[in-house]
Amino acid sequence: MPYVKIEVTREGVTRQQKQALIAGVTNVLTEILNKDPNLTHVVIQEIDLDDWGYGGEQVSVLRERGITANK
Amino acid sequence: MPYVKIEVTREGVTRQQKQALIAGVTNVLTEILNKDPNLTHVVIQEIDLDDWGYGGEQVSVLRERGITANK
Amino acid sequence: MPYVKIEVTREGVTRQQKQALIAGVTNVLTEILNKDPNLTHVVIQEIDLDDWGYGGEQVSVLRERGITANK
Amino acid sequence: MPYVKIEVTREGVTRQQKQALIAGVTNVLTEILNKDPNLTHVVIQEIDLDDWGYGGEQVSVLRERGITANK
Amino acid sequence: MPYVKIEVTREGVTRQQKQALIAGVTNVLTEILNKDPNLTHVVIQEIDLDDWGYGGEQVSVLRERGITANK
Amino acid sequence: MPYVKIEVTREGVTRQQKQALIAGVTNVLTEILNKDPNLTHVVIQEIDLDDWGYGGEQVSVLRERGITANK
Repeated sequence: MPYVKIEVTREGVTRQQKQALIAGVTNVLTEILNKDPNLTHVVIQEIDLDDWGYGGEQVSVLRERGITANK
Repeated sequence: MPYVKIEVTREGVTRQQKQALIAGVTNVLTEILNKDPNLTHVVIQEIDLDDWGYGGEQVSVLRERGITANK
Repeated sequence: MPYVKIEVTREGVTRQQKQALIAGVTNVLTEILNKDPNLTHVVIQEIDLDDWGYGGEQVSVLRERGITANK
Repeated sequence: MPYVKIEVTREGVTRQQKQALIAGVTNVLTEILNKDPNLTHVVIQEIDLDDWGYGGEQVSVLRERGITANK
Repeated sequence: MPYVKIEVTREGVTRQQKQALIAGVTNVLTEILNKDPNLTHVVIQEIDLDDWGYGGEQVSVLRERGITANK
Repeated sequence: MPYVKIEVTREGVTRQQKQALIAGVTNVLTEILNKDPNLTHVVIQEIDLDDWGYGGEQVSVLRERGITANK
């Protein structure tokens, strides 16, 4: 009975990316824990850039300075 | 001091249904745990159908196929 | 697809009370939202009294002063 | 590696107040736990007044009766 | 800045499985959202079988009846 | 009606530090949002080092390599 919550900054995540996240995370849980995917729920929550802080700063401010979270 | 979070898919939950959820869940906690309702908080969070996954699929896709969560 | 998280202070909640909480909350969601109980998950999380704060004080300190959350 | 989630009712919290919350909470964690602020994340989630219940009532109803959460 | 919370029933998840979950989920987020893994946090929370309810029943009761969540 | 959840790695946080966290965070919310502290709840959740991942690695592994989260 896994339940997974994914919180990410709201920066243009597409419907296809969300579907890939749900499929990918469900697959990880199914493979590693041998869980029935029909008992596995994944919830994605996008967070506005003003509402996420990191290092004491709003992410919206960090983005204005050109700082991204990209690899 | 209970705190309850209810996550449901966003599918037309009305204000009256939310009020009934809050009253009903508070009542369950008050009756079973003998808690002061004035120290009991209930938060409802509606989740878009693209953001909830079940069985590795977006609920929005499942709904397009006619699969519901109704009893 | 509801998911419910119940956080309560760890003060001797019995297995029977937990079962009653799960049944009661699931019933509220089933009745009000017409949800399939087989898609309804309820998770209870007990919180140590040192780890819950209210009014700026640890609940463990409030309990030592004789302040309870009972109705 | 602290992660903090702040849930507040949606009642006109400004961008400046959010920045102050993020800075203030990060500072509390840094001072008390000696944590690297660059490993400290703070997420603010505003909750609509219809979605927060207290004492078995929707906060939106309490506000209509003139009951606030102000100090 | 993703944050992921994985809740699973406490049924003998090993340290190696936890490491695999963390690596697998971080990899899914990195690949699909192009996120810096150093800004990606994953938290696993195991839930006692008495504390997880499904279909209105404690999972501990379901397990006693021989019902598992295995695929 | 704020509710705050603080998740930190379980690394010897003392009762006094928890009390200071609760008082400090409640004070930040009271000062910035003008909230009644008696409606402000703070919950601390300590997470075992095997259960927190960062950069795709368990924190327990990072600590064995001498990597800390101290400032």
